[in-house]
Amino acid sequence: MTIGIGLLGLGTVGAGVAGILTTPQGRHPLVSELELRRVAVRDLSRPRPLDLPEAILSTDPEAVVDDPAVDIVVEVMGGLEPARSLILRAIEAGKPVVTANKAVIARYGDEIAAAAAAKGVYVLIEAAVGGGIPIIEPLKQSLGGNRIQRVSGIINGTTNYILSRMADEGAAYADVLADAQRLGYAEADPAADVEGGDAADKIAILAGLAYGGSVERTAIPTEGIHRLDGRDVNYADQLGYAVKLVASARCLGTDADGTVQLDVSVGPTLLPRDHPLAGVHGVNNAILVEGDPVGRVMFYGPGAGAGPTASAVVADILNIAGIREVAGAGGALDPLLAASRWRRCRLVDPGVSQHRNYLRLRTGDQPGVIGRIGSCFGDEGVSIRSIVQFDSSLDGGDAEIVVITHEVAEASFRRALAAIEALGDVTAVAACLRTL
Amino acid sequence: MTIGIGLLGLGTVGAGVAGILTTPQGRHPLVSELELRRVAVRDLSRPRPLDLPEAILSTDPEAVVDDPAVDIVVEVMGGLEPARSLILRAIEAGKPVVTANKAVIARYGDEIAAAAAAKGVYVLIEAAVGGGIPIIEPLKQSLGGNRIQRVSGIINGTTNYILSRMADEGAAYADVLADAQRLGYAEADPAADVEGGDAADKIAILAGLAYGGSVERTAIPTEGIHRLDGRDVNYADQLGYAVKLVASARCLGTDADGTVQLDVSVGPTLLPRDHPLAGVHGVNNAILVEGDPVGRVMFYGPGAGAGPTASAVVADILNIAGIREVAGAGGALDPLLAASRWRRCRLVDPGVSQHRNYLRLRTGDQPGVIGRIGSCFGDEGVSIRSIVQFDSSLDGGDAEIVVITHEVAEASFRRALAAIEALGDVTAVAACLRTL
Repeated sequence: MTIGIGLLGLGTVGAGVAGILTTPQGRHPLVSELELRRVAVRDLSRPRPLDLPEAILSTDPEAVVDDPAVDIVVEVMGGLEPARSLILRAIEAGKPVVTANKAVIARYGDEIAAAAAAKGVYVLIEAAVGGGIPIIEPLKQSLGGNRIQRVSGIINGTTNYILSRMADEGAAYADVLADAQRLGYAEADPAADVEGGDAADKIAILAGLAYGGSVERTAIPTEGIHRLDGRDVNYADQLGYAVKLVASARCLGTDADGTVQLDVSVGPTLLPRDHPLAGVHGVNNAILVEGDPVGRVMFYGPGAGAGPTASAVVADILNIAGIREVAGAGGALDPLLAASRWRRCRLVDPGVSQHRNYLRLRTGDQPGVIGRIGSCFGDEGVSIRSIVQFDSSLDGGDAEIVVITHEVAEASFRRALAAIEALGDVTAVAACLRTL
Repeated sequence: MTIGIGLLGLGTVGAGVAGILTTPQGRHPLVSELELRRVAVRDLSRPRPLDLPEAILSTDPEAVVDDPAVDIVVEVMGGLEPARSLILRAIEAGKPVVTANKAVIARYGDEIAAAAAAKGVYVLIEAAVGGGIPIIEPLKQSLGGNRIQRVSGIINGTTNYILSRMADEGAAYADVLADAQRLGYAEADPAADVEGGDAADKIAILAGLAYGGSVERTAIPTEGIHRLDGRDVNYADQLGYAVKLVASARCLGTDADGTVQLDVSVGPTLLPRDHPLAGVHGVNNAILVEGDPVGRVMFYGPGAGAGPTASAVVADILNIAGIREVAGAGGALDPLLAASRWRRCRLVDPGVSQHRNYLRLRTGDQPGVIGRIGSCFGDEGVSIRSIVQFDSSLDGGDAEIVVITHEVAEASFRRALAAIEALGDVTAVAACLRTL
C-alpha cells in the first residue's frame, strides 16, 4: 500500500526529506511504501539540490495540501504563516501532518492540537526539538510509566557552539558570534538563538509532552547569552563548572485540583563538570529526562542540520504509515502517538522556584567584605557552598567575589541580594546565574 | 477499556512493574487502564516488597499465561527455561508478550519472532538492553529512515563500574571485582558480565533491530575484561584514551544478494577522550547509533536496576495498549513496533574487520627496537599513529612499548604482529586491544 507524501518546502530540510524518500534502499522497508507525490516550492526556476520530476513541483502549497494523491502533509517551510494555515488546512481535510516548525507549534500548538483531535488526525513534531535526536517519540512512547520530575536540555546548537568556544579559547562573546555567523552556525539576525527564544519554544513543547498539559510559552522566564561576560565562563571553569544555555522544566508538585506546578526557564546556567549535560560540546544538543522510577536518561546528538532534521521528519512519517497499516486511514488514534493533553499545567511564580545560584560581585578590596556578604545570606537563611575572591585587574582596584549558594528559594536569594547591594563596599552585582 | 496484565516473576523488576501499575497517578493516563490481574511467584510464603491481593498470586506460571483475564503477558522471571516455553505458550494463545529477558531473546529470538509473526502478536523487549534507556523503541520507531552504519555501546553496567574504578583509582581488576561483589554491582558468579557474554547477548539484539536481520549470537567474537591488566588502563589514560567494554556492530557493505555484512564484536576498547562513549561512568550504559543521514545520536542512562528496568517494561505494555486502542485485540501489526526481520545479515570473517589497535609489547631495552617494530608494521602497510616507550619497573629490566595504529584490516595487523613476535628483542605481546 503506497502512501502519498506532499512536501511543503524544499529548502535544506525539505531536500533532505526528499533525498531519503527517493532512495529507500538500505532503510526500513516501510520507506519504500512512501511516495513523494507533490512538492511546494517558492520559485520553480531556482536550481534545486536534487532532481525531482517537474510535474510534482508546484508554487501553490494549498494545491499540494488539497491534492487527493497526498495522504500525509509534511510542512518544512518554516515561519509562522502560511505554515500555520496550511497545517490547519491539512487537518481540516483529515490529513495527518508532520512538521519541523517549532515556532508554530510553540505558539499555536493548542489550536493545532484541538483541530487535530476534532478531526482524529496526527500532528507529529519529532523534528521540532533536538534535530535528529529522537526525543519527542521516546517521551511519548517510552517514558509514559514515569512521573517526570524534570526535563532539561541544551536545545540550541548556535548558543552551545558559542559557549563552547568561549570556554575553550577564553574568547569574548561578540568575537565568537561574528565567527559563528561567518561559518553559518549563527544567522545574520541571531536574536532568536542568542536571546533564548528558540530554546523557550522548544522547552514549551517538551514540557507540554512530559507533563501532559500545555505550557504558556510567553510566560517562560527567558534569558539569553548575549549579555554573558566571558569572565563568568572563566570563573565558573576555575570552580569546576561549565556554563551552558539550559532550558529546564521542573515539576514542583500539584495543586488540589491536580494542576501541575512547573518551574520552566531558559538561561545561562552553571553545570558541575560531572553533570551529563556539561560534556555536550559544539552544535550538539542533549535532553536529560529525570523521572520516577527511571532515574536520569539522556538523549544526545546533532541538534540541527538538513540530514538529522530530515531523519526526524521521516521518523514521524513512518510512524503514521505504520499505524495506518493497523488502522487504515481515518481509524482511531493511538493515545501515545497522538499525545493529547490530559491535565492542566501552570507556571509557578519565579519567587518560589528553588535552585542554586552563581553570583559575581564587585567590591572594594576591604577587610571584612566577605564576612558582611556572608551575613546578608545568613540573615535570609541562604546557605553558601563557596565564596571565592578572584584576582582581578579591574579599573579602580575593585576586587571580584564569586558566591555559589546551595539550593534556595529564589525569593530568599533575592532578599539577600538586595541587602548585599545596599552594602557600602559592594560596587556592583556583576552577574547572577542559575546553577544546577 | 481495561487491559489485564499477567506478571511472571515478582523479583526486583517484577515488583518495580507492579509498583508502577498499582500507582498510576501522575503517570500517563493509559497506565490507569492497565490492571494487574495475575502474578506468578516462586513461593507464596516469601515476604514481598509490596502488598498485592493474595487472590492474584499463583505459583503456576502456566495458569497465569492461560488465564482469560490476562491480555498481556509480562515475563520478568529471567533464565532460559521455563521463560522461553512460557513466552511461546503466551504467543500460541495469541497474547502479546513483554520481556526483559535478554538471554532468551539473544538465543531464541528467531524462534520466538517466527511464532509471534505466525500468530500476529507483539513480543516487545525494551528492557532487555540498556535498562531504563529508551533504545529499542527509538531504533524501531525513530531511526527507520536511516542507513545504520554502526551501533556501539557500553551495555554492561558491572564491567563499566569496574573499569571506571580501575581508571579512577589505579586499582587492580581482581580487587575492584571483589568490591563490586560486596556492593551488589557484580554477581557471585560474575562470568556472564566480566567475560562479555551479557554484552554479546545485547549487541546481538541491537544489531538485529538496527539492520533488520538476525545475527548469529554464538559467532560474535567476545572478549571480557577479566584478563585486562590495570597497566593498560593506565597507559591508555596517559595517551588520552579511556578503556571501556564496547559492544559494536558495524555495517561493512552488502553482498550481491543484499545480505548485510556485519562486523560485530565485544571487547575492551580504547576510546579517545572526546568520544561520546568515553564519558560514560559507573553503572551507566550508553548506546551510540551512527546513521545516514542522522549522524551520531546517543542514548544514555541507568543500564540496570529495578526502577529503570520496570520503566522500560511498562513502556512496552503501554505501546501494546496504545495500539490496541487503534486496532482492537488481534488486529494487524504495526510494522515498526513488530520489527519483523526484513533482510539477511551475516558476520564477516574477523580478518576483514577494519579498526585501530592498541598493542603493548615487552622488549629488551635495546637501541633500534622501535625501528624494527616500525618496520614490521611498515612491511604490512600498517600505518602507526603513535609509538611510545614507557618507563617500567618490570622484572629483568624489560621495557614496555605501546603502539597505536591507524585503522587497518585485522589480517594485515595480525601478519605484522607475527613478524614482531619473531623479533629477538620482543619478549612478549603483553596486550592487544581494539581502538575506536
